[in-house]
Amino acid sequence: MTWNPEIEAAFYPKSVAIVGASAEAKREGPRLGGGSGFITSLETTGFKGRIYPVNPRADEIYGYKAYPKVSAIPDHVDLVIMSIPATAAPEALLDCASVGVKNIHMFTAGFEETGNPEAVELGKRVREIAINNGLHIIGPNCMGLYVPESGIGTFPNLPKQIGPVAFVSQSGGHLNWYSHYGPNYGVYFSKGISFGNAYVLDSTDFLEYLENDSQTGMICMYLEGVKDGAKLRKQVQSINRNKPVIIWKAGLTAAGTKAVASHTGSLAGQEAVWKGFFAQTGAVQVNSLEEMAETAMTFLCLKPTRGNRAAVVSIGGGTSVSAADTCSREGLETPTLSSRAQNELRKFIPTAGSSVRNPLDTVSGLRNIDILERELEIVIAEPNIDMLILMPHLDSAHNGLNKTIDLLCNFAKNHPSGKPIVIVFHSFANDPWEAEQRARLKVELPQKGVATYASLTAASRALARFAQYHRIQREMKG
Amino acid sequence: MTWNPEIEAAFYPKSVAIVGASAEAKREGPRLGGGSGFITSLETTGFKGRIYPVNPRADEIYGYKAYPKVSAIPDHVDLVIMSIPATAAPEALLDCASVGVKNIHMFTAGFEETGNPEAVELGKRVREIAINNGLHIIGPNCMGLYVPESGIGTFPNLPKQIGPVAFVSQSGGHLNWYSHYGPNYGVYFSKGISFGNAYVLDSTDFLEYLENDSQTGMICMYLEGVKDGAKLRKQVQSINRNKPVIIWKAGLTAAGTKAVASHTGSLAGQEAVWKGFFAQTGAVQVNSLEEMAETAMTFLCLKPTRGNRAAVVSIGGGTSVSAADTCSREGLETPTLSSRAQNELRKFIPTAGSSVRNPLDTVSGLRNIDILERELEIVIAEPNIDMLILMPHLDSAHNGLNKTIDLLCNFAKNHPSGKPIVIVFHSFANDPWEAEQRARLKVELPQKGVATYASLTAASRALARFAQYHRIQREMKG
Repeated sequence: MTWNPEIEAAFYPKSVAIVGASAEAKREGPRLGGGSGFITSLETTGFKGRIYPVNPRADEIYGYKAYPKVSAIPDHVDLVIMSIPATAAPEALLDCASVGVKNIHMFTAGFEETGNPEAVELGKRVREIAINNGLHIIGPNCMGLYVPESGIGTFPNLPKQIGPVAFVSQSGGHLNWYSHYGPNYGVYFSKGISFGNAYVLDSTDFLEYLENDSQTGMICMYLEGVKDGAKLRKQVQSINRNKPVIIWKAGLTAAGTKAVASHTGSLAGQEAVWKGFFAQTGAVQVNSLEEMAETAMTFLCLKPTRGNRAAVVSIGGGTSVSAADTCSREGLETPTLSSRAQNELRKFIPTAGSSVRNPLDTVSGLRNIDILERELEIVIAEPNIDMLILMPHLDSAHNGLNKTIDLLCNFAKNHPSGKPIVIVFHSFANDPWEAEQRARLKVELPQKGVATYASLTAASRALARFAQYHRIQREMKG
Repeated sequence: MTWNPEIEAAFYPKSVAIVGASAEAKREGPRLGGGSGFITSLETTGFKGRIYPVNPRADEIYGYKAYPKVSAIPDHVDLVIMSIPATAAPEALLDCASVGVKNIHMFTAGFEETGNPEAVELGKRVREIAINNGLHIIGPNCMGLYVPESGIGTFPNLPKQIGPVAFVSQSGGHLNWYSHYGPNYGVYFSKGISFGNAYVLDSTDFLEYLENDSQTGMICMYLEGVKDGAKLRKQVQSINRNKPVIIWKAGLTAAGTKAVASHTGSLAGQEAVWKGFFAQTGAVQVNSLEEMAETAMTFLCLKPTRGNRAAVVSIGGGTSVSAADTCSREGLETPTLSSRAQNELRKFIPTAGSSVRNPLDTVSGLRNIDILERELEIVIAEPNIDMLILMPHLDSAHNGLNKTIDLLCNFAKNHPSGKPIVIVFHSFANDPWEAEQRARLKVELPQKGVATYASLTAASRALARFAQYHRIQREMKG
C-alpha cells in the first residue's frame, strides 16, 4: 500500500486497546501472549495515553475498565493490539472496522507459518478483511511498535531514552534484543518496528515513513523475506544517501531459507539476488545483531572517512602481527608508516622489542601518557593513514589508566584531523579488575560518542563497512 | 637439533640464574625487561628451587645473594634467564658455556627483527656461540617457559593449576594472554613455551618433547615462521592422532607476513602452502586466541562426534532463523527433525509462535524444566542429529533458572547417547543481573566440563572444527 498519514497515529497514539487482555494473568511478570503483558509493557515504557483492555469476561484488568469488544469502547482507538487465537481474529477485525479503527498490531500468530492448510486459509481471510476495510495491519505474528517518544512498547522495560536509530525488524525477538542491547553501544532508538508476516504493512511501507521522519537519522533492518524487492531496492538506494541503511538479511544460507519459511512464512530469496541488492543500493550488510550494533555505533560516532588505511597501536609483537592479519581479513589495509614518521618515533621509542612500522607495538607508548600523545600525533599526521585503532592495555598496575583513557577519548572526539579514531578493549587476562574496567568502559565510551569495540575483529569489520559506505557514497556523488 | 634429554632440566629446574636482574628495580610491580621482574614471576608462579640473580653491581637483589656472572655461582644452574642488552649477550653466553650451563632462555631482544645490519651480525654471532658450545637456547626475543608443575613462569601471577594443554607460542605476549585467558574456558596448562626467534630450539624440537610428555594431552601452537616445514608436517601428522594439535598460524595475509618480519624476523610462508599443511596433517586451524580457547575447551569437554549435524534449541523465531544461518556459515548442518519427532514434540508444544523442525523455537521448553527434559530426549534420540546446541534464556523473571542449568549440565555431561551437548549464553539485553549470570556461568560451566560459549558463532565454529577433526581421524584410521 501507499503510505497513509493515518498510520502516524499508530506511532503516537492517544488511546490503545488490548484485545485479549486476560483477567487471570498475574501482575508480577509480563507473559508474552498473555495479552495483559502488553499493559505492563506500555506502562513501563512510559505510555501516558488511555489504555482499554478488551475481554468479554472481565470488568476490570490491572485497574483499567475492560470492554467486551473494541466497538464498545466510548472513545476513538488509535491503535489496537490484538492478542487472541488466530481463529478469533476475523471477527475481532470486523468489529474494529465497524467503528473506524484503522491501526491494528496483530500479535496473534498461527497462520501460514505453521504449514497447516487450515491456518493458511485463515490467513487469507484476514488479509481479505484488511483489504476490504482499509485496515493498516502490522503483523500478524509480530511484536509491533517501540516508540520511546510516545511510550509505546510491547516488551517490558524498554529504554526510555530517545535516539536517532530506527529499527525495522521482521522478528519481534530481535526488536526486543536490539532495543536492550543497542544502548551498550550508545545506540538508542527513534522507532522500532516488528512487522512479522506483513499482511498489509511491509518493510517498504515503514521505510517510506522513516525516510521522512525527522527523528530518524539511520535505519537498521532485519529482513527475512521481501514482497516487492524492486521497490525496496529503489527506496534503500535513495534513503541510504542521507540516512545510512544497515541491513541484516537472514535466510541467505539454504538452512536459513528453510528456517525463514517456518518463522514468518516468507520466501527468503537467493544469495546472488541479495548480493546485487547490496551492490546497487550501497546499503551496509551485516550478519548478526552484534555486527549491527557495532556498525550503527561506528556511524554514530565517526566523521566520514577518506579510506580504509588503518594504523593500529597495540602492545606486544604477537598482538601486532595478529592485528595485521585481522585487519586484512576484515578489509582494512595497514600500510607501513613513512621513514620520516618511523624516524620521528624512534627518537623516543626504544628499538628492542618494539615496532614502529604499523601495526605499532610500543609498550612504552601505551603506558606513558606523554609518549603516547607524541606517538599518536605523528601517526595521525601520516597522509597514507585514514584511521587509527588504539588498543590500550588495561591492568591494575597501570596507575595512569584514567588519564590515558581521557587522552584517547579526547583524541577520538576532538582531533582536528577529523580522522576516525577508535578504541579496542580486547579480552586479555582473567583479572576481575581488568574485566570490570573493560565492561564499564565498553559501555561508557560509546555513550560519550567514542567508538569502542570488544575485539579488533569487531572494530576492523565495522570500520571496513564504514569505509566502504563512504567510498560508494563518494562514487555515487561523482 | 635432535631433542636432548638435558633440556628436560629447563622445564623442571632445581636452580635458576637471572642474568641482568637489576638492583634498582622497584619491588612493587614486575617490569618486563627489568630482569628482576623474573624473580617476582618465579615467586608468584610458585617456584620452590634456588634463585640466583646475576649482576656485577649488586650484592643482593630482592633478598637473594647476587653474583657477578654465572660462572661465579657455586652451584649447577639448570636454567639461565638472560635479560641483558643484545650487545652483552655473546660474552654472557660464553661465560655460561665455560661452566657447563646448557639451558638458556634469552629474553634479550634486538637482533634481526630490528632490521638493523649490525643487529643481524650480532644474531649470527650468538647462533655461532650456541652451536659451538651445544647451548640449548630458547629464544632470543621471547618469554621462555611456563610450567605450573615446577613453578616456572616468566610473567607474574600465572595460574598454578595444572592442566593437559601445552602451548607452543612464537609470541611471549600470547603465552601470557592464553595462560590467563584459557582458564575462563576451563583450559589449564601442562607446559607453555615462548620461543621467539628460535636460534636453536624451534617448534619442532618442542613438539618432539611434548609428543612424549605424559602430562600433555593436547597441543596448541601459535606460529609465525617455521624453519623446517617438512619436519613440522610429519611431526604434527603423527602427534595429531593421539593428541589433537590446534594451530594459530599468523602471517597468512600479506599484511600479516610483513608484520611477522618485524616481530620475530621469520618468513611467514604462503597461504597455499599452509592450506596443504592443514589438509595433510588434520591439525585444527584457528585464527585468533579466542578461537583457540574455544576449540581447546571443545576438545576437553566433549566425546568424539560422528558428524556435524546439529539441533539448536532456542527461543524466538528470529533467533532460530539466525541460528540456521550461523550454523551453516560456520560449517554445521541443521537437518529437519523427522515427522515422528515433530509429532512427539507437538504433543506438548503449542503450534502458534513456535517451531519444532530445527532450529527449534520453543519458549515453553526453555522456561519449563519438565517440558525441556522431554523435548531434549526426543531431539537427542534422532538418528540424523549428531550434536545439540542449547541456548537457554537468562532473565531475572525465570525462577527455575538454576534447576534448568543443572538439568542442561547433567544432560551435557552424562547423557548416555554420548552425543556432544553444549550451551550458548548469547548476549541479549543490558540487564546487569543477566550479564552477571552469563559471565559467571560462562566461566563456571567449562570448569565443570560443560562446553559453554558466548555466542552461537563461537559454538558452531568450534563444533565444526571438532567434527572435521573426528571425520579426518576416522578417514585416516580406515
